[in-house]
Amino acid sequence: MTLPAPLTGVVPPVCTPLTPDNEVDTASLTRLVDHLVSAGVDALFVLGSSSEAAYLPDRHRRLVVDTVVRHVAGQLPVLAGAIDMTTLRVHDHVDAVTAAGADAVVVTAPFYTRTHPAEISRHFRAVAAHSPVPVFAYDQPVSVPLKLGTDLVAELASDGVIAGLKDSSGDEGAFRASLIATRGIPGFSVLTGSELTVDSALAMGAHGVVPGLGNVDPEGYVHLYRYAKDGDWDRARAEQERLCALFGMVGVGDAARMGGSSSALGAFKAALHLRGVIDCAATAVPQVPLSPSEVERVGKYLAAAGLL
Amino acid sequence: MTLPAPLTGVVPPVCTPLTPDNEVDTASLTRLVDHLVSAGVDALFVLGSSSEAAYLPDRHRRLVVDTVVRHVAGQLPVLAGAIDMTTLRVHDHVDAVTAAGADAVVVTAPFYTRTHPAEISRHFRAVAAHSPVPVFAYDQPVSVPLKLGTDLVAELASDGVIAGLKDSSGDEGAFRASLIATRGIPGFSVLTGSELTVDSALAMGAHGVVPGLGNVDPEGYVHLYRYAKDGDWDRARAEQERLCALFGMVGVGDAARMGGSSSALGAFKAALHLRGVIDCAATAVPQVPLSPSEVERVGKYLAAAGLL
Amino acid sequence: MTLPAPLTGVVPPVCTPLTPDNEVDTASLTRLVDHLVSAGVDALFVLGSSSEAAYLPDRHRRLVVDTVVRHVAGQLPVLAGAIDMTTLRVHDHVDAVTAAGADAVVVTAPFYTRTHPAEISRHFRAVAAHSPVPVFAYDQPVSVPLKLGTDLVAELASDGVIAGLKDSSGDEGAFRASLIATRGIPGFSVLTGSELTVDSALAMGAHGVVPGLGNVDPEGYVHLYRYAKDGDWDRARAEQERLCALFGMVGVGDAARMGGSSSALGAFKAALHLRGVIDCAATAVPQVPLSPSEVERVGKYLAAAGLL
Amino acid sequence: MTLPAPLTGVVPPVCTPLTPDNEVDTASLTRLVDHLVSAGVDALFVLGSSSEAAYLPDRHRRLVVDTVVRHVAGQLPVLAGAIDMTTLRVHDHVDAVTAAGADAVVVTAPFYTRTHPAEISRHFRAVAAHSPVPVFAYDQPVSVPLKLGTDLVAELASDGVIAGLKDSSGDEGAFRASLIATRGIPGFSVLTGSELTVDSALAMGAHGVVPGLGNVDPEGYVHLYRYAKDGDWDRARAEQERLCALFGMVGVGDAARMGGSSSALGAFKAALHLRGVIDCAATAVPQVPLSPSEVERVGKYLAAAGLL
Repeated sequence: MTLPAPLTGVVPPVCTPLTPDNEVDTASLTRLVDHLVSAGVDALFVLGSSSEAAYLPDRHRRLVVDTVVRHVAGQLPVLAGAIDMTTLRVHDHVDAVTAAGADAVVVTAPFYTRTHPAEISRHFRAVAAHSPVPVFAYDQPVSVPLKLGTDLVAELASDGVIAGLKDSSGDEGAFRASLIATRGIPGFSVLTGSELTVDSALAMGAHGVVPGLGNVDPEGYVHLYRYAKDGDWDRARAEQERLCALFGMVGVGDAARMGGSSSALGAFKAALHLRGVIDCAATAVPQVPLSPSEVERVGKYLAAAGLL
Repeated sequence: MTLPAPLTGVVPPVCTPLTPDNEVDTASLTRLVDHLVSAGVDALFVLGSSSEAAYLPDRHRRLVVDTVVRHVAGQLPVLAGAIDMTTLRVHDHVDAVTAAGADAVVVTAPFYTRTHPAEISRHFRAVAAHSPVPVFAYDQPVSVPLKLGTDLVAELASDGVIAGLKDSSGDEGAFRASLIATRGIPGFSVLTGSELTVDSALAMGAHGVVPGLGNVDPEGYVHLYRYAKDGDWDRARAEQERLCALFGMVGVGDAARMGGSSSALGAFKAALHLRGVIDCAATAVPQVPLSPSEVERVGKYLAAAGLL
Repeated sequence: MTLPAPLTGVVPPVCTPLTPDNEVDTASLTRLVDHLVSAGVDALFVLGSSSEAAYLPDRHRRLVVDTVVRHVAGQLPVLAGAIDMTTLRVHDHVDAVTAAGADAVVVTAPFYTRTHPAEISRHFRAVAAHSPVPVFAYDQPVSVPLKLGTDLVAELASDGVIAGLKDSSGDEGAFRASLIATRGIPGFSVLTGSELTVDSALAMGAHGVVPGLGNVDPEGYVHLYRYAKDGDWDRARAEQERLCALFGMVGVGDAARMGGSSSALGAFKAALHLRGVIDCAATAVPQVPLSPSEVERVGKYLAAAGLL
Repeated sequence: MTLPAPLTGVVPPVCTPLTPDNEVDTASLTRLVDHLVSAGVDALFVLGSSSEAAYLPDRHRRLVVDTVVRHVAGQLPVLAGAIDMTTLRVHDHVDAVTAAGADAVVVTAPFYTRTHPAEISRHFRAVAAHSPVPVFAYDQPVSVPLKLGTDLVAELASDGVIAGLKDSSGDEGAFRASLIATRGIPGFSVLTGSELTVDSALAMGAHGVVPGLGNVDPEGYVHLYRYAKDGDWDRARAEQERLCALFGMVGVGDAARMGGSSSALGAFKAALHLRGVIDCAATAVPQVPLSPSEVERVGKYLAAAGLL
């Protein structure tokens, strides 16, 4: 389907349910898609960071995008990450996800290698020239690890290279600068990857939101988005604060025993399992599983938020 | 062939010659291999950082390892990088390079994702269990970006998970700590990725050296290694200083116009082109090419070192 | 005077006007204070980062706080930075600024030395035990360079160690977490150091704002604060966006020639000079002065914002 | 006394013994000086990082330099750190330590503020113009946190701004580059701050060594320096490895409970106390003290090295 321009609303980055032996659990995946679609989300984003894209081999990636695109069957747009180190490798992922029917691709700056704004610009221009579908720039400094500059985003946007920005930087000042700098560009979409400042981002004029926590509580973000669109900032703030409390689950994992990814993605998956959406909470190797007592704490977050 | 244990000597990380349209130039690649082998190097390392592995799509990677393994035909060992974000993706690269005949694989800690020593340990253990050939840990903090701890290296070494360490951290104190900590482990090999402190590393007891600049001047490193083995530290130091001066070429690229990779790898390839080894100095997209005057400066470095 | 608890409103971090030979220009400083007070700000913060505290020797620091406290004469509260590397050095600054009459002190985590949350906690507890006036924690990761954790802030707040938080981290998700975590603590004040997300911070419940740009356009931030208090979020957003555009001045300095401090503080001082508030736009050594054409660009930002 | 040019040999950065209530223990300090002088060191460096300069208020700093200069009484040169954030603050420390009789000052790049090579150059030039004694540049990226570039060091050296470099970066490739770049400058001194690669540094041509561990085992470094000067690299290496093992003591402190400074400086002071040199092992607030069992482990390191 043709992507709306600008893309707006709630676009959850879809978790990738796995079996205990780290195969893609397509039955759970389609249940998760149903859980999200029935909550009223506006589009889906597969193969992003919350999808454990960095952990999925190419055959898993293909299975995920294929499963989701088929299951969604055009009801709403599917964006797909094409996450890899540099241009030619990204091209191959673009080919794979668009062959499967993705409606847009989401691409980071080059990583692993030391890079430069001029090279990042060349990278996005090459990917856009190669891609049959619109390209979203993915600003993910925790992973890449560099911040896309506002000037670069504005240049790529006004040249029609990118159709939108998915900003997971957590730097809301720079996010606003990118919003203002691209405001006059027809159809350009600015999405926040934050879970915690969605009301702020929408008040600034953000088009949409891509919250990992939206896997666990898609209705929450759908409500929050609607309150913001209605200008009901008091209810938006209250809903946001409820979600902030729920987001506390990302810290259940013992930092002496595991990294931030294991804890946060482990908590999202444990919550989806506790809510009955997916069959198994396993995260991909080499992530460390949550302990039973850590999973229990996830349950308490769910209960406190009225989700269990 | 069976990898010597410990692996010793000069093991250049082989550049990947490309055509102007970014295809692998296999004719130039085999000439480069001949240039290295005839200089007396002890093994070859393909698909590492100096090989632009981060820039090469899988089909390029396969062509490189296949071309080099076939051409070398067992004269000396070929190590191959299996550089990717996490475990299952690394498994696929291990399968590909070992199917082509690589004698060992070189693997970094996970990247793109936030990780933890416990997860790095699980990662190397899983890769080693999967790999039919020995695994070298690749400590590359500029890219990953984290430093492998000495305790972790020692644990993996003494458990037989890794057969060696390729340390490109530039932290010679930690390098020495790893050397000392693994000294009693039979067959374990500690290699420095430094171009500038090879004599120091060998004096400390390093088994070998993996210098990117060894593409340009393999004889230099072969001589340096021999002087060090002979305990002729004065000549080793003089040769090292000659190579330090030559290494200045990595800075020819204008930092306002390109990143460090474009400049350093561009200089190595320009030097190989000027020396008549490869047909084209192109680096992979999205790197920025050196300007003619920058290439001219590379030539001056070669001339000053007696290589042109 | 006794500090209001919580401290609320607009609290500009007062620039330190200097003579061409880097002495404190007290006449310009009192004019700057009048400029701020007459605009309706709620308190003043001297000797913070925007005051070039890091550049001022102790005698300059004393002259600044003494001049401002005397001139303000109790009309509004004066907070003073006690910026130094560790506890005992901070104690001396606390003694100096409170002897001069400062109503509160603003203190960072230790810097220069490698530190740990337990040590940061000890640091703030020791400073608070030593200080005769309330202590604000200053979260300034660009300088320190670490982020104060929400748990640590909440612990120090609930133990009565700190009276408030001045958050210049730019991480609005963490800012919100600190706001929520300290909400039940009577009198505790959470201030944002952002120039660009003040409306968002106030919508989240922030008590006040400490914008460096408030030197240049204090009326702007006073208006913005009032709109927010009145719940007039549309006008708040419009005013914020006008200030975002004005903030662009911090980038006038050529990054090839100077650091971010030289550019941003140079622009603020050039703007104050162009507006006739201070006699000389000099920044402290070793900062690089703006060129005439860079100053001209500052003037254009002022003109576009209706300030010249 | 006039500083030798170049300064050579072993120059320990003298720890600052404290009483339990964090006053300078001058009796222990003079005993520590005697311990170092009688071991045959070539000069003393007070008020550096190992001296806890970042933790000492100005009155402590004055007492330290005054005590040491008086006690040494011209037997050997005394260098003093003038560690502060920027130029004018450094000037005041230069005035204080030179009034007390320091023979040279040791100065870092500006910190706390975002800086630029042009500003660092201006900083050192201003300090050198102000200082009545030679200025050593202190490259301390862990603290500052930036690396002094080789080009900048070479420029300052050849312009006579700095008399030497004290390199604690741990980057031995860059260290060598600085050595080579300044080799032709008469009297210029390049010192390594490493504890672990002293033999390497001396083999490269370093003039001297400033090891924190030299407080604990000054004879070790004096022997190591002598072996290196004699070209007896085998004994140098053996002595260096003995010192590497001893240096393991810096890791005794539990990283879950304290920072790296508390652990390393706490271990050095515990060792000096166990060896009977100083009366009390206290480190300055807010550092966390070692536990009794951690101190016991320090004792085991001493015993293993034959020092207890």
